[in-house]
Amino acid sequence: MMKAGVLGSGTVGQAISARLAELGHDVMIGTRDPNKLSEWQASHKEGKIGSFAETAGHGEIIFNATNGAASLDVLNMAGESNLNGKVLVDISNPLDFSKGMPPSLLVSNTDSLGEQIQEAFPQVKVVKTLNTVTANIMVYPRQVANGDHHVFVSGNDAQAKEQVTDILKSFGWIHVLDLGDITSARGVEMYLPIWLRLWGALGTGMFNVKIMK
Amino acid sequence: MMKAGVLGSGTVGQAISARLAELGHDVMIGTRDPNKLSEWQASHKEGKIGSFAETAGHGEIIFNATNGAASLDVLNMAGESNLNGKVLVDISNPLDFSKGMPPSLLVSNTDSLGEQIQEAFPQVKVVKTLNTVTANIMVYPRQVANGDHHVFVSGNDAQAKEQVTDILKSFGWIHVLDLGDITSARGVEMYLPIWLRLWGALGTGMFNVKIMK
Repeated sequence: MMKAGVLGSGTVGQAISARLAELGHDVMIGTRDPNKLSEWQASHKEGKIGSFAETAGHGEIIFNATNGAASLDVLNMAGESNLNGKVLVDISNPLDFSKGMPPSLLVSNTDSLGEQIQEAFPQVKVVKTLNTVTANIMVYPRQVANGDHHVFVSGNDAQAKEQVTDILKSFGWIHVLDLGDITSARGVEMYLPIWLRLWGALGTGMFNVKIMK
Repeated sequence: MMKAGVLGSGTVGQAISARLAELGHDVMIGTRDPNKLSEWQASHKEGKIGSFAETAGHGEIIFNATNGAASLDVLNMAGESNLNGKVLVDISNPLDFSKGMPPSLLVSNTDSLGEQIQEAFPQVKVVKTLNTVTANIMVYPRQVANGDHHVFVSGNDAQAKEQVTDILKSFGWIHVLDLGDITSARGVEMYLPIWLRLWGALGTGMFNVKIMK
């Protein structure tokens, strides 16, 4: 059992929080707007709700499930002192919807949101993962092809990546592939444009890729 | 049997040309430097070698197998009048090695090389494909997992995509997925950063992705 703080109360934050609670962890979900969570709270009575700072303070491990455009602001509100020394599982995607659909990326190519977070919080162990699948698959990967598909981890700290890999396996993930240091977050974030096109072509978000050798 | 013009004499151009010749097509390979092809010519006596313009003139269908940084220049040398009305299979990747390894992209996010080519040559039917795998897999996809993995086509002309799909199937491809119009070239080009990281993590370029539903 671990104390987990989940920043962000959208689809991804709620899915991650519910799954962690289901697995017996002590979860607090952090939000600007606790009212948004009344429905979630009703069906997850054991879940705690707090401000971003309270949530970061609560967690031994933190999940960034915020909108990528807001992630750095939210992490600043959460507070460096509440985050330092901890593993931050970064699930965010820096999607830019301001130029119409499909969205482009706010940062890409020679940088990534994962790297920006790591640079802004050098004492935090950032592990980028899960941003390449829809929320439902993140937490119940066996729903697709009995789990026979891949998720990736990127980060500078090997031990942090191992810890996150264990959590992913507890969610049901079978194939967790280490892509390298946090600069490999560029790869998984820049995967989003093809992922969005695949969603369009397949007519469902319930898919993922398997690496075939 | 078709007349094919392959622009570019690097690894990809040679692989595509050899495979097309093997399948009985009348192939000309276009290059700035015919000497580079002496070895290839020795083992492919039926293959023709020409300038970019001669090659584009020869082909009923054209393959852009040039370095992405040079593609627009080469296509201009090939000549709009030699290209107009034809299908252009665009295999190029706009990789930028000038900032060190891993390479970044010369164009991405709100544009792509596939789109730039389509815009520069509006009378050409550009179909982006094959840029997501290594040359060897492009032309012999059954080498990996008996061909049980995916390649993508992007382009504005449905009939051109069908024609290219047939050629891909003649190469051995089983799963060819239509991602949409030429703007979906952004997706397959921005896939390169994760592809390069996967190559590093797997220790081989002999892999591809399968879409699992």
